[in-house]
Amino acid sequence: MKNIFTTKASFLLALFTFNFSSFIFSQDSIVIKKISDEIFVSGQIYKNEEYLCKKIGARLTSSAGAEKAVQWTYNLMKSYNFDTVYLQEVMVPHWVRGEKEIGRVASTIESTSVAITALGGSIATSKDGITAEVVEVKDFDELKKLGVKGVKGKIVFYNHPFDVKMILPFQMYGEAVKYRYAGASEAARYGAVASIVRSMTNYVDEYPHTGAMGYNDSLPKIPACAISTKDAEYLSSVLKKVGKANFYLKMNCETLPDVKSYNVIGEIRGSEHPEEIIVVGGHLDSWDLAEGASDDGTGAMQSIEVLRTLKKIGVKPKCTIRAVMFMNEENGLKGGKEYAEQAKKQNEKHILALESDAGGFTPRGFSMTMSEDKKDKIKKWKDYFYPYGAYDFTRKGGGADISPLEKQGVPVMELSPDNQRYFIIHHTGRDTFEQVNERELEMGAIVMTMMVYFVSEYGL
Amino acid sequence: MKNIFTTKASFLLALFTFNFSSFIFSQDSIVIKKISDEIFVSGQIYKNEEYLCKKIGARLTSSAGAEKAVQWTYNLMKSYNFDTVYLQEVMVPHWVRGEKEIGRVASTIESTSVAITALGGSIATSKDGITAEVVEVKDFDELKKLGVKGVKGKIVFYNHPFDVKMILPFQMYGEAVKYRYAGASEAARYGAVASIVRSMTNYVDEYPHTGAMGYNDSLPKIPACAISTKDAEYLSSVLKKVGKANFYLKMNCETLPDVKSYNVIGEIRGSEHPEEIIVVGGHLDSWDLAEGASDDGTGAMQSIEVLRTLKKIGVKPKCTIRAVMFMNEENGLKGGKEYAEQAKKQNEKHILALESDAGGFTPRGFSMTMSEDKKDKIKKWKDYFYPYGAYDFTRKGGGADISPLEKQGVPVMELSPDNQRYFIIHHTGRDTFEQVNERELEMGAIVMTMMVYFVSEYGL
Repeated sequence: MKNIFTTKASFLLALFTFNFSSFIFSQDSIVIKKISDEIFVSGQIYKNEEYLCKKIGARLTSSAGAEKAVQWTYNLMKSYNFDTVYLQEVMVPHWVRGEKEIGRVASTIESTSVAITALGGSIATSKDGITAEVVEVKDFDELKKLGVKGVKGKIVFYNHPFDVKMILPFQMYGEAVKYRYAGASEAARYGAVASIVRSMTNYVDEYPHTGAMGYNDSLPKIPACAISTKDAEYLSSVLKKVGKANFYLKMNCETLPDVKSYNVIGEIRGSEHPEEIIVVGGHLDSWDLAEGASDDGTGAMQSIEVLRTLKKIGVKPKCTIRAVMFMNEENGLKGGKEYAEQAKKQNEKHILALESDAGGFTPRGFSMTMSEDKKDKIKKWKDYFYPYGAYDFTRKGGGADISPLEKQGVPVMELSPDNQRYFIIHHTGRDTFEQVNERELEMGAIVMTMMVYFVSEYGL
Repeated sequence: MKNIFTTKASFLLALFTFNFSSFIFSQDSIVIKKISDEIFVSGQIYKNEEYLCKKIGARLTSSAGAEKAVQWTYNLMKSYNFDTVYLQEVMVPHWVRGEKEIGRVASTIESTSVAITALGGSIATSKDGITAEVVEVKDFDELKKLGVKGVKGKIVFYNHPFDVKMILPFQMYGEAVKYRYAGASEAARYGAVASIVRSMTNYVDEYPHTGAMGYNDSLPKIPACAISTKDAEYLSSVLKKVGKANFYLKMNCETLPDVKSYNVIGEIRGSEHPEEIIVVGGHLDSWDLAEGASDDGTGAMQSIEVLRTLKKIGVKPKCTIRAVMFMNEENGLKGGKEYAEQAKKQNEKHILALESDAGGFTPRGFSMTMSEDKKDKIKKWKDYFYPYGAYDFTRKGGGADISPLEKQGVPVMELSPDNQRYFIIHHTGRDTFEQVNERELEMGAIVMTMMVYFVSEYGL
């Protein structure tokens, strides 16, 4: 691609003759062009993302990294001269991984180390670790069939692959993640001593994926970890071949008392309806295995870029635009809950909350949860979004951090990126800056800025 | 993303309640589901792509790699038991790079090596290389202004960046590539002794991008090479700082006599209208700096996967479906031209030619060049493509290899992937298997198979 000049200069010219028939050349299209040019040419988002990933890095709730990120984003928004920048206190959980985990498969034919990662919220093993026979199940039905007789004293291994027949990665995730979240307690119900889950990804590779788990308080607590999809297939093959295998795991994680942390909030005050608030946000915390680049550095940095861009190009939004860096999405959602609670207490009027927390990939549209008449209004702006490829407004959605606002009746949206690559990265050692593409990240910021501009200008 | 269970299990369920209101549950939707499941679950495309990249590698026209690829794709299609598999002879140019090029910037303050790559079709320098003063221009206008007085005896350096304000990468490419293709002859018009072009990419990195150039036969031929965007900025900064710099380049490329090569063609014969042919193709040749993974291993492997899938799921297409691996797209288009010529000679009736040559990324739709009534017919199938995200049918397009068919009036289409990442890779040492994502590649193959199925079933 493409031997142009010898064959078809005219063809290539034709290729870029877009159909702009339905594009209205209005004041709005001038603003959009300014937004687009500012971010493509002078965007700060990619270098901000680099700083967040490379100078701060992992930002597990309550960690030093998370606190550093709070200070840095506060200072960054201050440096952009937003009208107000402030910290919103919130008490958050304090789970720590401790020393790196150890895992080992031992059968009569071989003994092999496998990388494991404790799931967030899990208890530790004893200091000497746990060794027990592994029993593999595909799902809770199989577990139930095994019952106490088959499970007691053993380690349950949930080998539930993503259903790759599904088209959307989050659809696969949604179907499988219960084994990560609830697997330990379900196994404990039948007397298991620990649980292992196949990592949450459709790819077969050597990266274990962490992520939140929770205990059913009426059942004994047992340690819970994940192994990579490759090791899951290995362990399964050993069990098939040898019939029986032991697993040794040693985990050193711990839940300490809650600590104080912050949502970081920056605001441009509305010129006509300052009491009407549009939230644009992402979460500042991340898992601890890498840099939290795509989950959710990208969403946090995009949210700041929206405000920076509007200010830079001289748009004075009619409504108040608030960038919110939520704390503790990954293992508690305390930031999102606190924000909504405070909003209610202050009697604030939120006309929209928009989150970006599905990766910084090329935008495909926005998912929405709001009344049909509001959706119809948004769909009328579609032609402006078409050139940027972000014009799928048909799906339902929102975002975890803004779900407490949604419960209060606030219309919510989420940026919908093309995330076929997401579960290579998600909650693993691979969630680094290098996986983020500059242009894709910028395009997300552009369409988010456009959406915020339209809603501020015309309301919902 | 996403702390689901503690916050909103019901929310996630809702997220995947798609709007299928306009989706027709017909025989067609059953076939589509079969296509999709076959490729997602049992697809051969990713491992074929891996073989092509890792076992064969670079496939510059007339190289041993290209010939190996001809034999391998022939055998591969034979192994899939397509009705007919054959080679179509075509004489192709034989340009060789020779020993790796050497480049050096020398000013009064420093002397620095820079990576250069000869442009395809360029002549070599003399054995000792060329040293001359560099003169930088942004475009042909600036070159013209300098004239003979400013250019004679010098090396012209085209420092024409991609216009990042443009949204689509191919739009930027289309605007800038004339400096690569025609820069040498235009510089020679004013007495330049060599030309250097800033690499064709919107990213600033250290990879020089090769690609085809051509000489104007009425002007002296001078050597032409590319430097990376990073080195282009460096060279420009030296010129600004010091006012003057020399460039040394040594290139060892050569054009040898044409040789015989092949298009590789596999066919499933139509069950009702065997005389009506649908071509689905990509090009088998590549540049020589890496593995030709995305340009255009992906398109070639997708085309084979289309036929394999239809056969595997038991679809007997009404029309004849032909996978064509075109030879020599990159530096001559001889394969595409020969194919069209033979089609004309044999009086064959092509009802559609579909190419994939814009990268194996997530499909966004198909670009088309055909009559409006044919486009309208295709647009009626849009709802079937929507779940796969490939439903932009508004752009004009085709493909280089099928452009000679287009000239004969054949309706043409090209798979339109999301290619914001393409010019990181294109024509560089980075065009490797590792840059290809399994799911994205499969999704392209799925929607191509769907399109071929619909056209075969219902005609245009």
